[in-house]
Amino acid sequence: MSNKIEFVKREQLKEKPDPKNLGFGQHFTDYMLSYDYDKDKGWHDLKIVPYGPIEISPAAQGIHYGQSVFEGLKAYKHGDDIVLFRPDQNFKRINNSLERINMPKIDEEELLEGLKQLVDVERDWVPEGEGQSLYIRPVVFATEGTLGVHASHNYKLLIILSPSGSYYGGGSLSPTKIYVEDEYVRAVRGGTGFAKTAGNYAASLLAQTQANKEGWDQVLWLDGVERKYVEEVGSMNIFFVINGKLVTPKLDGSILPGITRKSIIELAKKLGYEVEERHVAIDELIELHDKGELEEVFGAGTAAVISPVGKLKYEDREITINNFETGETTQKLYDHYVGIQSGKIEDPNGWRVVVPKY
Amino acid sequence: MSNKIEFVKREQLKEKPDPKNLGFGQHFTDYMLSYDYDKDKGWHDLKIVPYGPIEISPAAQGIHYGQSVFEGLKAYKHGDDIVLFRPDQNFKRINNSLERINMPKIDEEELLEGLKQLVDVERDWVPEGEGQSLYIRPVVFATEGTLGVHASHNYKLLIILSPSGSYYGGGSLSPTKIYVEDEYVRAVRGGTGFAKTAGNYAASLLAQTQANKEGWDQVLWLDGVERKYVEEVGSMNIFFVINGKLVTPKLDGSILPGITRKSIIELAKKLGYEVEERHVAIDELIELHDKGELEEVFGAGTAAVISPVGKLKYEDREITINNFETGETTQKLYDHYVGIQSGKIEDPNGWRVVVPKY
Repeated sequence: MSNKIEFVKREQLKEKPDPKNLGFGQHFTDYMLSYDYDKDKGWHDLKIVPYGPIEISPAAQGIHYGQSVFEGLKAYKHGDDIVLFRPDQNFKRINNSLERINMPKIDEEELLEGLKQLVDVERDWVPEGEGQSLYIRPVVFATEGTLGVHASHNYKLLIILSPSGSYYGGGSLSPTKIYVEDEYVRAVRGGTGFAKTAGNYAASLLAQTQANKEGWDQVLWLDGVERKYVEEVGSMNIFFVINGKLVTPKLDGSILPGITRKSIIELAKKLGYEVEERHVAIDELIELHDKGELEEVFGAGTAAVISPVGKLKYEDREITINNFETGETTQKLYDHYVGIQSGKIEDPNGWRVVVPKY
Repeated sequence: MSNKIEFVKREQLKEKPDPKNLGFGQHFTDYMLSYDYDKDKGWHDLKIVPYGPIEISPAAQGIHYGQSVFEGLKAYKHGDDIVLFRPDQNFKRINNSLERINMPKIDEEELLEGLKQLVDVERDWVPEGEGQSLYIRPVVFATEGTLGVHASHNYKLLIILSPSGSYYGGGSLSPTKIYVEDEYVRAVRGGTGFAKTAGNYAASLLAQTQANKEGWDQVLWLDGVERKYVEEVGSMNIFFVINGKLVTPKLDGSILPGITRKSIIELAKKLGYEVEERHVAIDELIELHDKGELEEVFGAGTAAVISPVGKLKYEDREITINNFETGETTQKLYDHYVGIQSGKIEDPNGWRVVVPKY
């Protein structure tokens, strides 16, 4: 397993971007991991190759029929070490996603080993500023170049790396404004909502764009059956602090099982919070707000980690949460979580995985 | 509009495939239409180029976030003429699909003109055997190579052409066996079901594969809310003959508005049939069958045109339709429809569009 994988060297390394203007997913490192699948050979040709354009058939099924899933995780710089955050969880989830849209599973251990070797090669690309990280994007897509609608016989897996800035531009947490979507639906039980498939994101863009135009940062999705229960925010899961208790929608097939979500639940329990995973109706939230019991709301996802919600708009109601300020619980969970990620706080659960020097 | 578009010649033409073994979507012609979009320039660089691999960024948003829509239509050989079948309908629908997933619309007239010029160049590729055609596949996908989740700023449109065999291998219509899917859901109102997006197809594959394993040809989808009303079959819309009347599920957002569906409805009315578009519950169908009133069932789509259904399985019931034989109405509609497509029957509605010789 820890044999070194094939490494195709590039002739010239790229110039690194200005660490003050990294943004998110704008810059890519010198190398990427590449892995191919075909029906007869299975997964083969795992190698590290120069980052650059790939050739695909104009009939590639990943383009035409959307067989494509991805993951997102981060690497951080801790002194001389490069640390991954719970990478096993991402490779576990990618297999669930692959299965849902009829794609071949990967060997989680093997891919994690490949990722470590890739990140080792690119350790100089991991930014070290406050809140900065190396964003890691595994993606698997169908490459068979024929038009019959069936599970593709060929796939490509890539892992690309992007040094990324702090979500909050290095400043403190700032509350976002969320539009509760009552027209469009992201997912429904029986569909692909729990899987990180390309199509789920395409389906979400129009609502997101319309909300942005009206001054809202993100949309909060309601369930597709009753249009009543809150599910998740654009790129995050959602949490509520209700009478001191942490409440989040339970996973029942249409919600993405976020790794940040899972980690926040585990962390909050350790910190002594009561945590409830259950159905949460939007009307209940408005009522709780009116009674003064909806104390805080925040989103949780890999990109922002934790993002306080300051306003919610649903139909003709607009409610302000905690005076549009970051709440105490939100801040506390953020500080602990980022503390563990950045190595400033002890990591009793072994969430941090140090990348070996090969 | 009828200016000739740029034509990039290839050095060597390909060998044409054996017309007896065309299959579907396996072979591609010498050229394809290519069109690029960027946020500042809009759609630009419409040209005919050699068919072959394209280069994309490993971060192309079409791959990661599924912004991809497509169309399917056919060209037929009528003596010396090449004829397209209702191509205006496809370009109208592609704009509805593009809009739903936040992609820039195309100029329908301009694209139709481009398609005609492409097909003119490739007229030798249109097969002339019974039931054979040149399958035409327009596809538009996001090419921006960055990872922020937003509507892409760059897109590529391609039209590729594939000479394809008869769906029925040249023989007569043969009934299919359909599994009524009660676990997985294809689409829900508020989602993307009415749009021809890549993600809808990815979402359908697992159910299709499982049904195939158990000896069923296709799945019939139920609505995502009540899991009660029939929606569409894998790659076709569905029709029922009930007491001599033609009945098909009405379009309300989660069903693809098939062009064959629309044409069959128009044709059936001309032939004197009463046609009803309404919600059709699966339980109602079983009851009608048990009373002897469900006379025929068939699917309608571009690939098969019309495909009789001989068996339906729902939960623990298996019902046989019309003794597993092609019904009279099914056959009559098929003969008329294919007669118009192939030029053997008059075309009073102007569905046939002759490709000019440029």
